[in-house]
Amino acid sequence: MPKPPTRSAPRSRRSTRPRPRPTTAAPSHVVVGSRGHESRMVDVGEKPVTARRATARARVRFPRNLLKGLLERGGPKGPITEVARAAGVLAAKRTGDLIPMCHPLGLDVVDVRIEPLDGTTLEVRCTAACTGRTGVEMEAMVGAAIAALTIYDMTKALDPRIEIRSVELLEKSGGKSGHWKRTGGARARAATGPGRRNEVKR
Amino acid sequence: MPKPPTRSAPRSRRSTRPRPRPTTAAPSHVVVGSRGHESRMVDVGEKPVTARRATARARVRFPRNLLKGLLERGGPKGPITEVARAAGVLAAKRTGDLIPMCHPLGLDVVDVRIEPLDGTTLEVRCTAACTGRTGVEMEAMVGAAIAALTIYDMTKALDPRIEIRSVELLEKSGGKSGHWKRTGGARARAATGPGRRNEVKR
Amino acid sequence: MPKPPTRSAPRSRRSTRPRPRPTTAAPSHVVVGSRGHESRMVDVGEKPVTARRATARARVRFPRNLLKGLLERGGPKGPITEVARAAGVLAAKRTGDLIPMCHPLGLDVVDVRIEPLDGTTLEVRCTAACTGRTGVEMEAMVGAAIAALTIYDMTKALDPRIEIRSVELLEKSGGKSGHWKRTGGARARAATGPGRRNEVKR
Amino acid sequence: MPKPPTRSAPRSRRSTRPRPRPTTAAPSHVVVGSRGHESRMVDVGEKPVTARRATARARVRFPRNLLKGLLERGGPKGPITEVARAAGVLAAKRTGDLIPMCHPLGLDVVDVRIEPLDGTTLEVRCTAACTGRTGVEMEAMVGAAIAALTIYDMTKALDPRIEIRSVELLEKSGGKSGHWKRTGGARARAATGPGRRNEVKR
Amino acid sequence: MPKPPTRSAPRSRRSTRPRPRPTTAAPSHVVVGSRGHESRMVDVGEKPVTARRATARARVRFPRNLLKGLLERGGPKGPITEVARAAGVLAAKRTGDLIPMCHPLGLDVVDVRIEPLDGTTLEVRCTAACTGRTGVEMEAMVGAAIAALTIYDMTKALDPRIEIRSVELLEKSGGKSGHWKRTGGARARAATGPGRRNEVKR
Amino acid sequence: MPKPPTRSAPRSRRSTRPRPRPTTAAPSHVVVGSRGHESRMVDVGEKPVTARRATARARVRFPRNLLKGLLERGGPKGPITEVARAAGVLAAKRTGDLIPMCHPLGLDVVDVRIEPLDGTTLEVRCTAACTGRTGVEMEAMVGAAIAALTIYDMTKALDPRIEIRSVELLEKSGGKSGHWKRTGGARARAATGPGRRNEVKR
Repeated sequence: MPKPPTRSAPRSRRSTRPRPRPTTAAPSHVVVGSRGHESRMVDVGEKPVTARRATARARVRFPRNLLKGLLERGGPKGPITEVARAAGVLAAKRTGDLIPMCHPLGLDVVDVRIEPLDGTTLEVRCTAACTGRTGVEMEAMVGAAIAALTIYDMTKALDPRIEIRSVELLEKSGGKSGHWKRTGGARARAATGPGRRNEVKR
Repeated sequence: MPKPPTRSAPRSRRSTRPRPRPTTAAPSHVVVGSRGHESRMVDVGEKPVTARRATARARVRFPRNLLKGLLERGGPKGPITEVARAAGVLAAKRTGDLIPMCHPLGLDVVDVRIEPLDGTTLEVRCTAACTGRTGVEMEAMVGAAIAALTIYDMTKALDPRIEIRSVELLEKSGGKSGHWKRTGGARARAATGPGRRNEVKR
Repeated sequence: MPKPPTRSAPRSRRSTRPRPRPTTAAPSHVVVGSRGHESRMVDVGEKPVTARRATARARVRFPRNLLKGLLERGGPKGPITEVARAAGVLAAKRTGDLIPMCHPLGLDVVDVRIEPLDGTTLEVRCTAACTGRTGVEMEAMVGAAIAALTIYDMTKALDPRIEIRSVELLEKSGGKSGHWKRTGGARARAATGPGRRNEVKR
Repeated sequence: MPKPPTRSAPRSRRSTRPRPRPTTAAPSHVVVGSRGHESRMVDVGEKPVTARRATARARVRFPRNLLKGLLERGGPKGPITEVARAAGVLAAKRTGDLIPMCHPLGLDVVDVRIEPLDGTTLEVRCTAACTGRTGVEMEAMVGAAIAALTIYDMTKALDPRIEIRSVELLEKSGGKSGHWKRTGGARARAATGPGRRNEVKR
Repeated sequence: MPKPPTRSAPRSRRSTRPRPRPTTAAPSHVVVGSRGHESRMVDVGEKPVTARRATARARVRFPRNLLKGLLERGGPKGPITEVARAAGVLAAKRTGDLIPMCHPLGLDVVDVRIEPLDGTTLEVRCTAACTGRTGVEMEAMVGAAIAALTIYDMTKALDPRIEIRSVELLEKSGGKSGHWKRTGGARARAATGPGRRNEVKR
Repeated sequence: MPKPPTRSAPRSRRSTRPRPRPTTAAPSHVVVGSRGHESRMVDVGEKPVTARRATARARVRFPRNLLKGLLERGGPKGPITEVARAAGVLAAKRTGDLIPMCHPLGLDVVDVRIEPLDGTTLEVRCTAACTGRTGVEMEAMVGAAIAALTIYDMTKALDPRIEIRSVELLEKSGGKSGHWKRTGGARARAATGPGRRNEVKR
């Protein structure tokens, strides 16, 4: 239980207040918790409320000669994009129900777009935004993944080899770590945010 | 509404009974529905109850030098495998809540295993089984994907570039189409089931 | 708790076994429970497994001059039928989560169709089917209602007066009571089932 | 963080915000989205936080001679109002789980009242309120509808013709559009809000 | 469909079944899994379908002089038994969503009864039943616990010291282990089932 | 519906606005609602946003000689603490879905700790915190209870007599009533908050 003014005071073994997390004060972005043997949510109670936004991408790859007809005539379970979009938006809103250590969040928007990348790949992009104390990367990731899984569900009768190729974060903004954007390959990150550091804390 | 004895009778435009789906009788595994303009669940009411089983895989790829320490000391949110397994099992059980055109199913088991594949990749395998009228591919896929997303959630503070590389079906058995197993690369499928055909119908 | 061999024995006040329900043996279809002061689920454990099917209808009525453009160009939140169908199907599968005294059921199919009835009304029809011990009327009703509410959500910015006019059961079959179909107005029911009685028990 | 290739206005590289929706700037309350081919949530991130409130009504109509006994002695599944109220409140809280393009919201209150309107009709009124960026019309509508469906579930064994007659919004307040109240028949709306316009945006 | 590399027994290529669990063949009812380092669901695919029933109890204890008035006039949030019952029934149906290693089950009935035990204690009894391959102890336990927690929620403004005293299984029947019933204190179990052993396997 | 300026005006019987609750102005902490015949949520719309925190405890008691081996080697379903923790955290986040008259809340953290108290008892402590208009006692209680039930699920095959002994609130802070802490036995509460009163209102 929080006695907020006495945070640095010695705490008895029986204290019910979660220990201060290293994640909020650690000098390095690679933080390994001191309670390494126990899983935990991060306490975001003292983080400021800011506008947060994140975009993730999932790619669904089809064997040759399937995608074109699928987009034109629909698949075994009908046209896919609207159903996949609805599923992705609904799932993003339930991220806190699905991912144990994620915070339950109100969201300002979830936006799911599905477009062919080339003759064999559909790309799903999911953007989530909130005004809150923690980021929305997981909402974007979950929305993209479930939209992609819905595409798989609605087409797998054509060929079970259809595959979800990569679910990955593309970009995030808001919070202490500022703006981060995935870059090409090896040289991955370019810090542009206020703190010039790219950690994603949540 | 079913007037089961008169199924072949002419049906008025107002009939509320779903039309027979081409998916249940079509000669080819590449079935495109006649109601291509509308999404739909497959009616499995006349399929036999059989033992069904499916395994899917998801791979989480880490930038160099992260995975070893993560497995030894846990990540920013603590040790990951038990939390990811619980999340994957719970999500597999909620597949029908997440994927619109999937059937709600009782399941006999969901089994999630998480093991390092090499120095940069964790592999999640999810097997689901039921005794029912439709397959459990989506349960296996959803379980593997949510377990992998949970791993991402618990490690992304280390590096947001961590990526889910592929979510894919490995194997399935049960039902009319028999046993199917993903094979190497181009030569993908080897039919071994009773019908010698590999369609995945659901 | 069942002491099955001693079922007719006098039961102490402390017995934990639910009393036999009048609903399963009552001579009239208008059954009022003896435990009128307590809500309860019906125990269907001794009912036979049969194929069940039900269809419900919901109608959404628009002020003049809105519906045509809506169907052609979509509404403020985009095209509505696929999103409403996905929402209706998902909700039908969650009926047991929403309606307290409903049984959780596996379903063989949920089918949602949305069509204009005339220039001001969209009609939603939802058919649900299962192979089980209890009917699927509520699944059909919930699916139709949530699809209609989704249509309202996606169009209410056009005019908040848009209204859901009637959610009602159209037809049901399976189970002891046989086939029932809503008829015109006052003369409502025509028994066609094996028992010639129209009660809907669940 | 979509990099839309064909944006008419130059967008800065750092912008992570989905395109401004016509809904937020359009001169008319009848807004049809420019992305008419894709469903979407409205982005409410730049709307102010205000107190929002909405009331919806659902009416359940019984064949003659049923309602009085039902209220006095309960129905086949017991007394209905408390169960229906609990179901309506729970469902209103899950609106964002059920209606795809609705925002997930914290709520300040959900209030469900159930009263006989006359000898054949029960009226359910559901009021929802939040302090947030978007309205709570759908929460009120969903709460009223699910309470009404629960009443149907608990009484349908008496007569399957029991019917939900109308689910409709009665009143709303808060947000840019101010106060709106349903009026009698044709002359529907009386603007009282700051903008003198009655659109319901969400 | 795991291809476990280090299985001690040769496994056929087609086997898609997870390793036999010691729980199903172990000679003792105190079974510790061989995969002690990994949590898991039990595979019930080869168990027979039988009628299962279980009853659990939770007791809510009030400080003196609160319970009588509470039952007569309701608490700060109104009358409690119907709301608590609805919550308990709904939660029992969602047991598989809440308890990670539980199977998702169809249920034949959930029955929740709430009665004063004496002047300071309300007793909740929840009975669940299914026709299936695994027991319903957890459904009974979850239903009793959530009903008791709902009672706490609706009365805690009277006194936060109100306490849930014990949630415990009272009785179970069905399945290989037969009938089990909690007995007094130290001499706990009396075997009455076919196997004369009382293990509860699931 | 709120016409906020006319709140003190006489209200017609048909008003859709919830009546002011006695709970917000009552002189005594023992508040029995004037609408004693109807359950209800408390309207928290006019409460200030403050930091709230609560801790609850559940104790799981094992028959002799079970707990030590369980903690060392895991139980029939594997090691328990991480799975129970994940279940408790997930359930705490869904409190508003489970407890009918609870508000849906964003949470800043949920922290679940599981430690042996002595040779026969595991103690679960769950702390929840939010920045909001209402307390998080129920989130702490639900998190502790579901974690304890998960422990029961994963060990009940060892002995069905394992029992959850007490689920109780230990401490709370934030809101008008200030800090409250459970004390020993009879002398229960020590007021330390601003108002020197200990009611828990929600």
